[in-house]
Amino acid sequence: MNKDRKYVYLFQEGSKEMVDLLGGKGAGLAEMTRIGLNVPPGFTITTEACREYLKTEDFPAGMMDQVWTALKHVEKQSGRIFSDPENPLLVSVRSGAPVSMPGMMDTVLNVGLNSETLKGLEKRSGNRRFALDSYRRLIQMFGSIVLGIDSREFSDALESIKEQRGRKFDTDLDSADISDLIKIYGGIYEAHGKVFPQDVREQMEQAIEAVFRSWNSPRAQVYRKENGIGEWMGTAVSIVSMVFGNTGSRSATGVAFTRDPNSGEKVLFAEYLVNAQGEDVVSGIRTPRHISDMSRELPFAYRALLDSAEKLEKHYGDMQDIEFTVEDDIFYLLQTRSGKRTAKAALKIARDMVSEGILTEKDAVMRITPRMLDSLMHPQVKRTGKETVLGSGLPASPGAATGQAVFSSERAIELSKEKKPLILVRPETTADDVRGMVVSKGFLTQKGGMTSHAAVVARAMGKPAVVGAESIKVNVAERKMVSGDITVKEGDIITVDGTSGEFYLGTVETEAPGSNMDMDTVLSWADRFRKIGVRANANTPEEAIEARKLGAEGIGLARTERMFLGSDRLPIMREMIMSSSTEERIRHLDRLLPMQIHDFTEFFRTMEGFPVIIRLLDPPLHEFLPDKEEVIKEMYDLRNAAKSGKARKEDKKKLQDTEKIYTAIKNLEEFNPMLGFRGCRLGISYPEIYEMQVRAIIRAAMQVQSEGKKIFPEIMIPLVGHRSEIRVLRERLEKVVKSEDPEESVEYKFGTMIEIPRACITADEIARYADFFSFGTNDLTQMTFGYSRDDAEGKFLARYIEEGILENDPFSTIDQSGVGELMKIAVRKGRETNPELEVGICGEHGGDPDTVAFCSRIGLDYVSASPFRIPIARLAAARAAISDEEPTPTAGKARIPA
Amino acid sequence: MNKDRKYVYLFQEGSKEMVDLLGGKGAGLAEMTRIGLNVPPGFTITTEACREYLKTEDFPAGMMDQVWTALKHVEKQSGRIFSDPENPLLVSVRSGAPVSMPGMMDTVLNVGLNSETLKGLEKRSGNRRFALDSYRRLIQMFGSIVLGIDSREFSDALESIKEQRGRKFDTDLDSADISDLIKIYGGIYEAHGKVFPQDVREQMEQAIEAVFRSWNSPRAQVYRKENGIGEWMGTAVSIVSMVFGNTGSRSATGVAFTRDPNSGEKVLFAEYLVNAQGEDVVSGIRTPRHISDMSRELPFAYRALLDSAEKLEKHYGDMQDIEFTVEDDIFYLLQTRSGKRTAKAALKIARDMVSEGILTEKDAVMRITPRMLDSLMHPQVKRTGKETVLGSGLPASPGAATGQAVFSSERAIELSKEKKPLILVRPETTADDVRGMVVSKGFLTQKGGMTSHAAVVARAMGKPAVVGAESIKVNVAERKMVSGDITVKEGDIITVDGTSGEFYLGTVETEAPGSNMDMDTVLSWADRFRKIGVRANANTPEEAIEARKLGAEGIGLARTERMFLGSDRLPIMREMIMSSSTEERIRHLDRLLPMQIHDFTEFFRTMEGFPVIIRLLDPPLHEFLPDKEEVIKEMYDLRNAAKSGKARKEDKKKLQDTEKIYTAIKNLEEFNPMLGFRGCRLGISYPEIYEMQVRAIIRAAMQVQSEGKKIFPEIMIPLVGHRSEIRVLRERLEKVVKSEDPEESVEYKFGTMIEIPRACITADEIARYADFFSFGTNDLTQMTFGYSRDDAEGKFLARYIEEGILENDPFSTIDQSGVGELMKIAVRKGRETNPELEVGICGEHGGDPDTVAFCSRIGLDYVSASPFRIPIARLAAARAAISDEEPTPTAGKARIPA
Repeated sequence: MNKDRKYVYLFQEGSKEMVDLLGGKGAGLAEMTRIGLNVPPGFTITTEACREYLKTEDFPAGMMDQVWTALKHVEKQSGRIFSDPENPLLVSVRSGAPVSMPGMMDTVLNVGLNSETLKGLEKRSGNRRFALDSYRRLIQMFGSIVLGIDSREFSDALESIKEQRGRKFDTDLDSADISDLIKIYGGIYEAHGKVFPQDVREQMEQAIEAVFRSWNSPRAQVYRKENGIGEWMGTAVSIVSMVFGNTGSRSATGVAFTRDPNSGEKVLFAEYLVNAQGEDVVSGIRTPRHISDMSRELPFAYRALLDSAEKLEKHYGDMQDIEFTVEDDIFYLLQTRSGKRTAKAALKIARDMVSEGILTEKDAVMRITPRMLDSLMHPQVKRTGKETVLGSGLPASPGAATGQAVFSSERAIELSKEKKPLILVRPETTADDVRGMVVSKGFLTQKGGMTSHAAVVARAMGKPAVVGAESIKVNVAERKMVSGDITVKEGDIITVDGTSGEFYLGTVETEAPGSNMDMDTVLSWADRFRKIGVRANANTPEEAIEARKLGAEGIGLARTERMFLGSDRLPIMREMIMSSSTEERIRHLDRLLPMQIHDFTEFFRTMEGFPVIIRLLDPPLHEFLPDKEEVIKEMYDLRNAAKSGKARKEDKKKLQDTEKIYTAIKNLEEFNPMLGFRGCRLGISYPEIYEMQVRAIIRAAMQVQSEGKKIFPEIMIPLVGHRSEIRVLRERLEKVVKSEDPEESVEYKFGTMIEIPRACITADEIARYADFFSFGTNDLTQMTFGYSRDDAEGKFLARYIEEGILENDPFSTIDQSGVGELMKIAVRKGRETNPELEVGICGEHGGDPDTVAFCSRIGLDYVSASPFRIPIARLAAARAAISDEEPTPTAGKARIPA
Repeated sequence: MNKDRKYVYLFQEGSKEMVDLLGGKGAGLAEMTRIGLNVPPGFTITTEACREYLKTEDFPAGMMDQVWTALKHVEKQSGRIFSDPENPLLVSVRSGAPVSMPGMMDTVLNVGLNSETLKGLEKRSGNRRFALDSYRRLIQMFGSIVLGIDSREFSDALESIKEQRGRKFDTDLDSADISDLIKIYGGIYEAHGKVFPQDVREQMEQAIEAVFRSWNSPRAQVYRKENGIGEWMGTAVSIVSMVFGNTGSRSATGVAFTRDPNSGEKVLFAEYLVNAQGEDVVSGIRTPRHISDMSRELPFAYRALLDSAEKLEKHYGDMQDIEFTVEDDIFYLLQTRSGKRTAKAALKIARDMVSEGILTEKDAVMRITPRMLDSLMHPQVKRTGKETVLGSGLPASPGAATGQAVFSSERAIELSKEKKPLILVRPETTADDVRGMVVSKGFLTQKGGMTSHAAVVARAMGKPAVVGAESIKVNVAERKMVSGDITVKEGDIITVDGTSGEFYLGTVETEAPGSNMDMDTVLSWADRFRKIGVRANANTPEEAIEARKLGAEGIGLARTERMFLGSDRLPIMREMIMSSSTEERIRHLDRLLPMQIHDFTEFFRTMEGFPVIIRLLDPPLHEFLPDKEEVIKEMYDLRNAAKSGKARKEDKKKLQDTEKIYTAIKNLEEFNPMLGFRGCRLGISYPEIYEMQVRAIIRAAMQVQSEGKKIFPEIMIPLVGHRSEIRVLRERLEKVVKSEDPEESVEYKFGTMIEIPRACITADEIARYADFFSFGTNDLTQMTFGYSRDDAEGKFLARYIEEGILENDPFSTIDQSGVGELMKIAVRKGRETNPELEVGICGEHGGDPDTVAFCSRIGLDYVSASPFRIPIARLAAARAAISDEEPTPTAGKARIPA
């Protein structure tokens, strides 16, 4: 490596933009130094040095020289000298990757202490116990982190000396105790053939190497894999001169959020402990004090904290999570980073910061992730503090679900007959468990990560799941699970929170999903920035109303078949299907006509001023008939009864009816119904069905128009794959329109779903007969991949995702290189022959943020999503539009748009 | 229209290249005139004039002026004057479209006769009866063709006068009879308020107009629709000065083929009648004489016929079908056209003409159509003259089939249980008949055209069919059909000949399909010209041997699953499928291993020197299990027996087994198996299956190599849609190869089917891991269209083709604008990342001529087809390559390639 390469940056040399090189922690320390906040002097070794080290297992040439040079600067700034037995400089050696990996890598404190410098520390602090305890901590950390001795050996030794000498807390140990403990630690080192280096430069070198190495610790690797963090990044190492919050009553240590991370309220949210070190706050041994006390106890430091918090927030343009230490009334900042917050808080903070002039509206929109909104659109656990937390795992699929615990799919299926809600708890799930998952409300697994079978299937089903809850033991044979000292048996009520990853005993209070004023405000900004419309998929007028409330600008897909499943309509539908002649079929359709007119009238009224796309009948007719196996079973039973002479008269009639239904089922039976006699293929073969539906649309439209309402009906033909299909249907159905509305009072559009690969490839031909295209990406994905979703999801798709054969579930987010390519072809070819063509998407993908961004980029006019995904779609569309803009220097600077 | 436009061409002005303008007949007359053959003088009115007429219902301006000018030339040439009462010029007004439409349009003879010119004709011929009869014929034709009087009124009058006067034949009528008949005809005209124009120019104008109009006669329209002839073409009209073969014993009329159209032998094949007119030969009233008599009876004319025939054949470079008339020893040619011939004759003629130096080998290849070879590849009826012909219809699907007549699908299904061959006879077929068609050997329908439901389904099934046999009456209720005076009842044996369109009572002698020496020779030429390889789809070593014989250059697809259906293997396969652990599965696979090694060894031996592509297991596993409904039925019966206490011990065991199978079926059951758990999805989930297969391939290859044979195994993965699938499998299976063949003695290729739309779209990514692509166009068509073939064919596809929504069955010939586009994308992208990529096609389309041409044009390396389609593929490939060459002036000129 180039010897002149710069591997070490003093804090004053770095900045917040250098995250990739200095890591999050290093960049933060540099930035705070740069803007004049009080940070202990120090420097950072770059991630590049780490990467070199990981490649060669050796420090890059010149790196340590640069470290010693930088240390000289620090010595000058601090007025202390590393290894000086009188007034020694001590440092912490801290890990810090470009992406936060909390607790995954190592840090060594108090580097620079040995039996000589110990005396200097004691002298300087005038506190022998403090000095000894600092030394003890270094030996302990060095032994476990740097030399790889099992940390439990040290903590066991600590516990046993406390026990022997009747000390309750660590803080109860006196100097003599600690002195003895140091000797015991020496014995542990000896037993492992290790030596604690008295040479402080040796300490420094080994500590740096250990932090580099910790990048590849197994837990760090797992964490990166699960969070999609690149293996190549490496960690930076920051060397910070030690400040001590435990030197006495004028010292303290604490953490603070610049706003309340739960509610988003603009109040400093902080805790501190007087005379303590950072780890004491985290360990929970002592109860931290509320920040309001600090103004009295440590007024100078309190003032400095408030000033720093305000300065940091303004500077970063975001709520900060900071760590601080007060040493003898002097306030030091040790870390700052963007603070984690609840979705609700995120919305409030974004909105408030715009009012305060800290953020622009665009910045605010970019601060809210679709995932945050997603979590707000599911029922959320509302913690009261009274819950019995059983444990936590990975939050694999958001939302909360409560039900009886059940430990196998077989039992789940049996219990589901009692119609009680179930939570399926498994060691892990496989394809065999899909049956059980279907009948359960939520899932909990002991093993597996964010892309495990359970996680993938849960997200696909939209049900809450917590996976990889390693702390529980599931015993399938005994139908129970054990978590700590609590045993949950089959039938016991538990609650899983797929948003947080926690799970609870019993029922837990939940909040219903929904929007709030902060969300509404942020989304209203989003609406201004997005370039693509957002419509809703709604099958009933009730859903349409809900969709309007959530901001839908029209209906992108109303599936008419759902309207035929009502108990008043299904029998008519069945008679229609079993008709033996066109005349008979028309007779039954005539009975459905007024019902359809009613449905459409309601739709048009609700969506006054907005387009409503009504899709004509799509599914194969057998979907309206009962299950074949059930019918066979009934038929056999009735036949046996007839044979045995036990049949009553009504049974004979019933047998006839059943046989008739069986014949109808057999006639309609298909090998692959997805690719069979459905959609426009039905419409072409039984013209009377679509004719009835179009008649209903036009009559309803005329009715609503006569009420003085402006409406925009759009008639959509499903499953078109060839220009002739839409040509023939358009000709036929225009005749119906003409006969119903000879004066052409209704302005309507006529278009088609694009859901067959061939339709994409020949979109230029189809667009000649279509006013609009709407991508049906569910079917398009099925056919482009050759996956039957119903079959694939449980049988091999989860495995594919788990093994990384597919990166994502193509039914959740658009497969851009396959299905997306076809969509691009369709958009291009379609607009070639029909430049006025309106193009949208109405598959379930329409509510997926990545898909929305993709659709915005390929120039679609709108996306259409389920009502509860509308806010997510609005936000995602805005974020895509903003990211695609030329970058402008707005960060941290207020710019309120006119 | 432009007055200067040329609408009329004298024969000496035209040529054979002007078919579009002058029609087939006009161009032939012109060409014969041009090369100095004796054609009666005349001229032709262009098809353009006809098109103008049909548009405006009026002759284009100037056309009739040009007619009269041309007529002046004809008068000069013939030395006779139109309307001259002394020596009148008479003409025929003949239709003639650019494409042959035999008998579909009208012709009027003897135009120019009236009561005045009649005398001139009588005087000139010295034959009053002849003159009167000529006049009678004109009046009759003019009345029916030009004036639209029902022709039966005239023929009834003719018959009744014959009866009244005891004349048996028309020729028995004397002058007085004919004179009276002319008067009776006058009465018919009067009854219709029509007048026969005595003005001969009026006759000419009206006759021309009538011929133009006959283009749009209903029968002509139907014919064009069925034969795919453009409506826009129009017909030309040739005006030919009349020559008479009925002026006495030195006159004659006849037709001749320049070679035998049945066998292809090089002998003049002709018939003639002395003292007769053309219609007498066709009507069959008198038995024509064999041409050998002519050399004695009419030696001058005979010489002229031989000379003309030879000259025409050399000039046209093809066997000709000619019409001639001899008037007083002078030989006239009235028509020449390429002669229709049997497929066998076509091959012989092509081969002979190359030997004779008339054709080049390339020309010969272009003369043979794939359809001809196709007919030779099916069993053919071998006419002996002893058959009872029941009638004829349209030859909708080639081949011959014999079986019991059956008149409904229900009955067909019942009778099929007796395993006897059936011919389904229906008024017409609909989707409901598909069940019956499945169990029948051939079809006959009373109604429907070449694209009717029956025709489409028959071709898709590859079964013989005659459709639209309007002469029969099918009576479904009485289970019979009537044809003339023969009644065929259910169970009676009939034979349909889908190649000729005829059908017979009883069994008829047939020829087995197969190649002959002429075919072999022509195909060997074809092999030289084609640019694309031809391989075979063969699932057994026997099929591979057959394929080699028919010229296959390797195996393009060997489906390994077919090998598991043998009675020795299926039980093992089932046990493998129902295994509860990987270990158990491997145990069963180990039993299949030696069998697979045996299969592959045979393949490699048979295909020594050629590539053999072996496709690993593809279908969903449930295909190896029994039918679910049967299993349910058995289970119910066994359970009932168990309940009633009647079950024997073995029944209980059987119930257990049945329940186990039922469970396996339920576990494997899928909504859309086509899009389900199959192909490489299985291969990835159960690695041991493909591992066994690859092990077998490599062991077999090593074995055959050790026998000193050079072999080229190619391993093909089915159903790849994502690069990761092939990447993972390739890695895994290469390990197996390595372990079997550590010294890498076997050279093999590793590739994939391209049968999923996504594979086409992302072919660049997939080609990184593939040595070859093979388009599986069956599945690719299913997914690109979203059609399940099994469901679509009977349910809506036939209707789509019948109604013209689709032009072709996309499962028979590649849909070029949809599926073909995807193929082009795949070829381009695949070769982008892997320029060495070998690309072929192994779907059933590989044997379809249009598809072969398409594949040749888009640059595929080979096509692979069923063995019996190999000759067709070889020919089609050569024809595509030749058509794509720059056109060179070879027609009619001998050029024997070196």
